Amino acid sequence: MQNLFEIDEWKIIQNNFDPEKQEAAESIFAIGNGSFGQRANFEEQYSGESLQGSYVGGVYYPDKTRVGWWKNGYPEYFAKVLNSCNWIGIKVKCEGQEIDLAKVTVKSFYRELDMKRGVLERRFRVLLDNDREVEIHSTRFCSMDNEEIAAISYKITPINFSGNFRFKVYLDNNVTNQDSNYEEFFWTEDSRKVGVKKGVISAKTKKTEFLVSTAMRYSFWKSGDEEQLEIHPSFKDSELYVENTLEYRLEQGTEYTLKKYVSVASTINHSDFSTTNAAINNVTEAYLGGYDALYDAHLKAWENIWSSADIQIDGDASAQQAIRFNIFHLYQTYTGKNAKLNIGPKGFTGEKYGGATYWDTEAYCIPFFLKTADSKVARQLLMYRFNQLDRAIENAGKLGFTDGAALYPMVTMNGEECHNEWEITFEEIHRNAAIAYAIHNYTLHTQDFEYVRMYGRHVINGIARFWAQRFNWSGAKEAYVMLGVTGPNEYENNVNNNWYTNYAAKWCIEYALETEAKFAEDGSLLTDAEVEKFKHVVDNVYLPKLDNTNVFLQQEGFMDKELIPVSELSADERPLNQYWSWDRILRSVYIKQADVLQGIYFFENHFTEEEIRENYEFYEPFTVHESSLSPCLHSIIAAKLGDKDQAYSHYLRTSRLDLDDYNSEVAEGLHITSMAGTWMSIVEGMAGIRVLEDGLTIDPLLPDQWKALNFHMYFRNNLLQLSIAENEVSIKNEGTAPVKMSVFGKEIELEGGAVSTSTRVLTA
Amino acid sequence: MQNLFEIDEWKIIQNNFDPEKQEAAESIFAIGNGSFGQRANFEEQYSGESLQGSYVGGVYYPDKTRVGWWKNGYPEYFAKVLNSCNWIGIKVKCEGQEIDLAKVTVKSFYRELDMKRGVLERRFRVLLDNDREVEIHSTRFCSMDNEEIAAISYKITPINFSGNFRFKVYLDNNVTNQDSNYEEFFWTEDSRKVGVKKGVISAKTKKTEFLVSTAMRYSFWKSGDEEQLEIHPSFKDSELYVENTLEYRLEQGTEYTLKKYVSVASTINHSDFSTTNAAINNVTEAYLGGYDALYDAHLKAWENIWSSADIQIDGDASAQQAIRFNIFHLYQTYTGKNAKLNIGPKGFTGEKYGGATYWDTEAYCIPFFLKTADSKVARQLLMYRFNQLDRAIENAGKLGFTDGAALYPMVTMNGEECHNEWEITFEEIHRNAAIAYAIHNYTLHTQDFEYVRMYGRHVINGIARFWAQRFNWSGAKEAYVMLGVTGPNEYENNVNNNWYTNYAAKWCIEYALETEAKFAEDGSLLTDAEVEKFKHVVDNVYLPKLDNTNVFLQQEGFMDKELIPVSELSADERPLNQYWSWDRILRSVYIKQADVLQGIYFFENHFTEEEIRENYEFYEPFTVHESSLSPCLHSIIAAKLGDKDQAYSHYLRTSRLDLDDYNSEVAEGLHITSMAGTWMSIVEGMAGIRVLEDGLTIDPLLPDQWKALNFHMYFRNNLLQLSIAENEVSIKNEGTAPVKMSVFGKEIELEGGAVSTSTRVLTA
Repeated sequence: MQNLFEIDEWKIIQNNFDPEKQEAAESIFAIGNGSFGQRANFEEQYSGESLQGSYVGGVYYPDKTRVGWWKNGYPEYFAKVLNSCNWIGIKVKCEGQEIDLAKVTVKSFYRELDMKRGVLERRFRVLLDNDREVEIHSTRFCSMDNEEIAAISYKITPINFSGNFRFKVYLDNNVTNQDSNYEEFFWTEDSRKVGVKKGVISAKTKKTEFLVSTAMRYSFWKSGDEEQLEIHPSFKDSELYVENTLEYRLEQGTEYTLKKYVSVASTINHSDFSTTNAAINNVTEAYLGGYDALYDAHLKAWENIWSSADIQIDGDASAQQAIRFNIFHLYQTYTGKNAKLNIGPKGFTGEKYGGATYWDTEAYCIPFFLKTADSKVARQLLMYRFNQLDRAIENAGKLGFTDGAALYPMVTMNGEECHNEWEITFEEIHRNAAIAYAIHNYTLHTQDFEYVRMYGRHVINGIARFWAQRFNWSGAKEAYVMLGVTGPNEYENNVNNNWYTNYAAKWCIEYALETEAKFAEDGSLLTDAEVEKFKHVVDNVYLPKLDNTNVFLQQEGFMDKELIPVSELSADERPLNQYWSWDRILRSVYIKQADVLQGIYFFENHFTEEEIRENYEFYEPFTVHESSLSPCLHSIIAAKLGDKDQAYSHYLRTSRLDLDDYNSEVAEGLHITSMAGTWMSIVEGMAGIRVLEDGLTIDPLLPDQWKALNFHMYFRNNLLQLSIAENEVSIKNEGTAPVKMSVFGKEIELEGGAVSTSTRVLTA
Repeated sequence: MQNLFEIDEWKIIQNNFDPEKQEAAESIFAIGNGSFGQRANFEEQYSGESLQGSYVGGVYYPDKTRVGWWKNGYPEYFAKVLNSCNWIGIKVKCEGQEIDLAKVTVKSFYRELDMKRGVLERRFRVLLDNDREVEIHSTRFCSMDNEEIAAISYKITPINFSGNFRFKVYLDNNVTNQDSNYEEFFWTEDSRKVGVKKGVISAKTKKTEFLVSTAMRYSFWKSGDEEQLEIHPSFKDSELYVENTLEYRLEQGTEYTLKKYVSVASTINHSDFSTTNAAINNVTEAYLGGYDALYDAHLKAWENIWSSADIQIDGDASAQQAIRFNIFHLYQTYTGKNAKLNIGPKGFTGEKYGGATYWDTEAYCIPFFLKTADSKVARQLLMYRFNQLDRAIENAGKLGFTDGAALYPMVTMNGEECHNEWEITFEEIHRNAAIAYAIHNYTLHTQDFEYVRMYGRHVINGIARFWAQRFNWSGAKEAYVMLGVTGPNEYENNVNNNWYTNYAAKWCIEYALETEAKFAEDGSLLTDAEVEKFKHVVDNVYLPKLDNTNVFLQQEGFMDKELIPVSELSADERPLNQYWSWDRILRSVYIKQADVLQGIYFFENHFTEEEIRENYEFYEPFTVHESSLSPCLHSIIAAKLGDKDQAYSHYLRTSRLDLDDYNSEVAEGLHITSMAGTWMSIVEGMAGIRVLEDGLTIDPLLPDQWKALNFHMYFRNNLLQLSIAENEVSIKNEGTAPVKMSVFGKEIELEGGAVSTSTRVLTA
């Protein structure tokens, strides 16, 4: 595997212009601020292959789905994150010749994404007709300080001539989604205005009626910031489009700067009445305050994020770059400012998977935010599901469940299901357990039981009710069985008694009983009959197991398969999902992603090390890891079992997945949620950190080339600073409350402000 | 359930005009001749709700399928039977007023479908402006004698006035399919010509490039056939459209007749070069021969069909009408003249299911044609599959099978799969067994082993190879298992060890071994290794069974379900497929159509009566019969078990399914293939006829109101005439060879020309 771009600890760097890599680069260099974001498209016109994409968090469209045949209960639409107003546009003509990198000679090209600062920069020289040479240096950012602001500094220098330049500074909301099912246009104009050095478009989405207002202002400067130039642009507008045209004679060797300020406001944060106004006010304030002030505030915000979220890996620049890339994109996608938003699998970097919410959020992203940010961030993600509880109850109702049973959708924007494969929509119901588990994990990290009392228990009970009804009594087994499910391993569909689903469902019901017991004095939200039923289920759940071993069976019938390990498969049949028909995959033994091992991961402390080892050793040889979410869990479990080679080799499969474009698909967007998995494999795998009822445990196992890991983590409202080498762990409690933990198996308690260094006792 | 139309033993009669019933009537009164057919649309303009539909056998279009998500191996298109040239059109204006039954006052209306003669007739009076009254009497048929000819006699009488009439006689190929996925237009014009009293359009289908030429001629007569009138029509044409306009003053009280002759020729029967010519020559010959000659030849052809295919039911006019309706439509759909054609589930009466071939043909239609027609008819249906063997081998290859393994598609037009639900396309593979079984059934009826030697064994071996590879060895069970299949009961998907599939697959492999042994002197088509493998599989197939009973388990895990009988389901949840989500249906015990019982039906003589009874009594209470193909098999098995009530009540569920529109869906077209099932429930169920290696057995069980069944059947090249009462069976061998049979358990041999009457020995 070759690196797609240069290795640098804080930057992604591209040193030459390669049209073949352009769409991949647009994904990798994408910027966002949790509220909106954009692929790294060029400001100036570009006629080469490109996926032009700007996305606004939470703004979606219910695109009518296409299926050949319908089953009763299928959703009729698939929610799509919407490609929205292109706000970066600055077209440049020099002496009548359009500067378009697909059409002119590119003499030099440098692009960097500065992850420390959250800034995308491009510096390039082009050769135009008559050997005219022009240098352009563009810088842009989506403000982490003000979630509705972005700014661009576009510097241009005629190198060997003086000449007439024409700039078109515009906003263009005439955009479609590449993945639209019926090539439909999703926007209608609400209003537009254009004036001297400014413009605004307010556009409404069809059906969902989100209003998004995009406003711009700009100024033009000579010699960097020295002298603001008086300009007299002409302007024009048409449906969903506003533009200023500015003509100017630029002098040889002088740098001119166009500063474009943009505000993106929407009805996610504003009323329909005030959205346009908000965009105009915001952009005016930004314009008046100036680029440098915005830039400084933006930098400070990133500095603040990095202060608790960064991981330093001593001894491995490539891994260092990769983990920062992951942390950077996770925070560009979600900041926790708004409970209406969630984390789409591709964030603001592409259209696939519709920008919608999956169980990835609970299984991968919440653990990340719980440790790297104030607990408010994870709490917002829990509130998102709480706010959709009624919809989850409706959803369960469509499947025949009653009395407050809740089934959260597989894929959603607003709480409704919007995925239409029956084996997923109706059957991959284990997602429900991850949502309850996230509440538990949240309290482990935060001890915020007040959240549970006020909100969480409603969600927990709805989920437990669903499970209690979804199990049915088998007369043959004299036990509760769960028929017709799809586990996390989507290479099995409609199986009976998936161990993971049964185990997790049983745990949810127990968790509901425990939670209600904890808040008994507030009055139980469960009826006596429910409590009785819950207890009967918990005591009688069928959990398939392989005779005379500790192996939990992925599902009934698993042992009837041909048990040929992945290592014996021919390389030219991989990935299986590209070479094998679906039935062949289904009846094969091969596992797409951790399934039994997902349960071992979630409930690790329920099992003995021997049980964990036997299951890992049984399932790992059959696992093809054809989901980006798979290797991280295997890495964590291998680390737990002390298998450094496997822990590291699994980690390597995810760490640079996008940066090195392992699967030749990064052009479509980044794998945002699996980035959190990579982070987990460092913090839980290599650093060996666990958060349990009793406190924190740390037992690291570092790859040989990693000298140490330095990072911060939040734990029960204290920020801890950790320095972790394989045999020495140093911790500073930067908070005020004492923290209990176990390091290398030794209990310690660390007062606020205290530092403790522990050393592994090595046996000869 | 009310009868939709009048009861008559040979006719379907509609006595008044009901626009609400028009689309249903268009299906029920549809006519065809095995080569082409048309819904009972009106000749004159009709602006009310109508599904205008003309279809040409074998002419299809690969319409791109719409699915939300793709699995590897999905077909990209779904073959559609094409709505083709509207050839019935005769628009009539009287004194400038269009006669359109949706717009004028209909004073009286009578429509009949004469099933004995294959003629559709309409007689109606309309009241126009100024109280002008007009009577119209139209008759049309698709010639059973000449499969490329149709004719219309359109008689018109001004009752109370003389006035100017204008007739537009036209062909219109500007037609689309109602079920087109992308509202695509499927036809392009190849050529057109129009002249005095004639016209022709040749149109090509996109992609598939079938050429269909439709030619017309017509004449105009006074006082019935007395005087042919000299006319001077004007004519016009436009893309895919030709028209003659004829103006004439009609005298009060006089009947005028427009005789329209049509020929439909296509590249199914002709070369691309000669198709247009063939249509012109045909129609000219028809025109010159005249309407009466065509009509007589057509009648004679139907007379011939009925002479061997009719069933007379003494004592039940409703059942009598129903069975003739079924026989009539089956022969309108398929005549066996052409091995390129097959039997679409809706024949020429609608668009749904694409007019394509399903396993319905082998399981239901071949038994019908084997007994009611010369063996050539069924042989054509076998040849259809033989001719598609290479495609079936390709299809199996897509699923990873090798060395000549053949998997016939679930749905096809040309041998390629064109269905796109993975659980059906990839997993409902039991269809393969029905195709081998049909060859066996053919030889039972015909003793034509030469067919097997020349063609059949290639198909049998391909199918057996598939099964031998599709089983896999289970180390856990020490047996061959079959994982991930869908049985005939499509309310279970992706199950392991479906008893029916395993049993039928095992039988196919045995059948291949036996067949190859039979032709050993020609040299085996199987390698020694294949023979060895086949034997090992046959000896070790896992067949799930319920402990301590004779019940064969539908699939593994069946007994874990909630075993609540259908009788306890609430009526307002039925049919389940309209009220329950798919996952709920899947995990429930409810059976859409005979599954284990399909095996009991096919291989009845492999099982003891006790085994049959136990399985019937176990499964019947869980069967919801939500497929039109289900009750007939239960009826046959119930009759076998002597349960007259169940045999009759199941029979009633199918016998008038379309005639009385049980499921409010007849507007979409008729259930042609399930009509064969109804026929089976009379001949195999009530009449108790079996065709076995040793000969024929007869053991009837008639519903109380049925006094006797009189019908013919072919058996080993002899036509038998049977008269069957419950306790007395009389048989005449109209053939020349002796026939062995067992009637009421007593062996008899009947010489050619002989008659034998047997009586049941009743025990007191």
